[in-house]
Amino acid sequence: MTTIADVAARAGVSKATASRALSGGGYVSAVTRERVRTAARELAYVAHSSATSLATGRSFSVGVIMPEPDRWFFAQLLSGIQDELFSSGYDLVLYGIQEGSSERRRLFEQVLPRRRLDGILAVGIQPSAHELRRLVQVGSPLVTIGAYSEDASAVSIDDVAAARIATEHLIDLGHRDIVFLGARSDAATHAYGDQRRLEGYMAAMVDAGLEASIRHAPGGSTMPGGYEAAVRTLGDRQNRPTAFVAVCDEVAIGGIIATRRLGLSVPTEISIVGIDDHVHAEMFSLTTVRQHPRAQGVAAVGLLHRRMADPEAEPERIVMASELVARSSTAAPR
Amino acid sequence: MTTIADVAARAGVSKATASRALSGGGYVSAVTRERVRTAARELAYVAHSSATSLATGRSFSVGVIMPEPDRWFFAQLLSGIQDELFSSGYDLVLYGIQEGSSERRRLFEQVLPRRRLDGILAVGIQPSAHELRRLVQVGSPLVTIGAYSEDASAVSIDDVAAARIATEHLIDLGHRDIVFLGARSDAATHAYGDQRRLEGYMAAMVDAGLEASIRHAPGGSTMPGGYEAAVRTLGDRQNRPTAFVAVCDEVAIGGIIATRRLGLSVPTEISIVGIDDHVHAEMFSLTTVRQHPRAQGVAAVGLLHRRMADPEAEPERIVMASELVARSSTAAPR
Repeated sequence: MTTIADVAARAGVSKATASRALSGGGYVSAVTRERVRTAARELAYVAHSSATSLATGRSFSVGVIMPEPDRWFFAQLLSGIQDELFSSGYDLVLYGIQEGSSERRRLFEQVLPRRRLDGILAVGIQPSAHELRRLVQVGSPLVTIGAYSEDASAVSIDDVAAARIATEHLIDLGHRDIVFLGARSDAATHAYGDQRRLEGYMAAMVDAGLEASIRHAPGGSTMPGGYEAAVRTLGDRQNRPTAFVAVCDEVAIGGIIATRRLGLSVPTEISIVGIDDHVHAEMFSLTTVRQHPRAQGVAAVGLLHRRMADPEAEPERIVMASELVARSSTAAPR
Repeated sequence: MTTIADVAARAGVSKATASRALSGGGYVSAVTRERVRTAARELAYVAHSSATSLATGRSFSVGVIMPEPDRWFFAQLLSGIQDELFSSGYDLVLYGIQEGSSERRRLFEQVLPRRRLDGILAVGIQPSAHELRRLVQVGSPLVTIGAYSEDASAVSIDDVAAARIATEHLIDLGHRDIVFLGARSDAATHAYGDQRRLEGYMAAMVDAGLEASIRHAPGGSTMPGGYEAAVRTLGDRQNRPTAFVAVCDEVAIGGIIATRRLGLSVPTEISIVGIDDHVHAEMFSLTTVRQHPRAQGVAAVGLLHRRMADPEAEPERIVMASELVARSSTAAPR
């Protein structure tokens, strides 16, 4: 059987270098990495992960904890994380866990400690102090995405600022009666970022001396949720707002569809602004505040690699920019 | 340190039973499983996966290979697979691989052989004969979903039948000029099921003595892809069809939005039928052929558990039912 020593000899490097090149876990030049990989291919060398894991104490696996893999944001993020981990030789172990569920408890108490993952990415969930302690005990470096904790590295946009940009865009156009669409009433299942966006809307309204008004989306931050919330709001003819700020583009698009089906015109009668720049935003000419979830995933894997290389390093935080993309779903009120 | 023997003693079972109960990998009654788990909790017993893996030769990890995690079907399926694996004590290792990419080759040649996964679920991709041989060498049982191979267990709907049901529904309503919306022109990246649906449409048209007509969706089987294909088709006023069969609901919904934006009425001027019963289908009153991807995920994990318990068993195939859900996007032509 071919050993790592055979591969190293053929590639003309040390065993340690060959091992790093094949694992993708360390600092090896691209040229050397390719030479080692070629040697490994020619010798049909395949490392066994259990043996590698035993020798190095590493599993070459990263856990990704996320609540809703079927929302655009999470799917895009997952795709960025997956590509980045795969190309650096790490497996992505997916845990799709809802906030406050019993599975979540089992995950932190039983599954993660047993698995010995090399690192963990927590997406859109706010780990509790207890959960963070558990991860520290386990020894897995943590990076959060779209959430924030002082004890962990983090990647996010500034959700408060994003919602403020969206709301101030409408205020600048002359709107006064602006409704926030899409907050959930059950705070326990709130995505962390959704709550921050609500705060950003409120802050902009208060600063402008306007009255904030929030409509819950019973179906959550989804297109049908936005549709339903918009139908209810616009159904009350006496108190129709002139504009909506939606918690995300999916809710905004649901709002556009609802508005049109009620025979109202966007943006002549109702302006709508979203947050995300969802893949469907352009199709609906949606004005929105753009973020790049794939890039956030890539950045988070970068932070995690640094934490894995040096677990004692100070937590780092990356706040990614978001900017207004003006399309034609917003205009001055009549 | 607490050992498996301590847990077994406290639960009053053999070490082998305790091990099976905690791993979730074998035949243990629900009552016994719960007793062992309680004992493990009380003793704060946590198995280490590297040690467990070494002792049992198992990794308690299942690889899931899928092309597009951000389509509704794949996200739903992933969610079903994830819940089912998690509750039976297995980790889900996600490989998001595009058809024909170099990553795909690296996955089958390097990554899967090294990982020693206990089983593999391949979603919507058709493994080649070479790839199947590689998996057999690796020793990982395989279950495919939405694809088919004689050498692997498989779960799918009958895609040909689903498209035939959709097409015949329109023919029964009196339509003669029916266009298929959403096939990709680059056959290499075709999702397997999409190709079967195209065949089902063609068969129904030929049987009814009608001429088949296919419009490619340049953006793929997505809402914008359907939107664009419908705009192009309806833009040619001389040759407007009276109805569309869409390869999936996302394409159908894009088609509905495009039709309305062109000032045409659904279903009075254009009937549209989809396949899936997507979460948004009801919001668009879309007539469709329903399938249940979550249930397919659960069923596939069940098949995989059987293959893992007995790798020599004959491959099994589950074809799940799909039925017409008539809403108001289809009607007789004017």
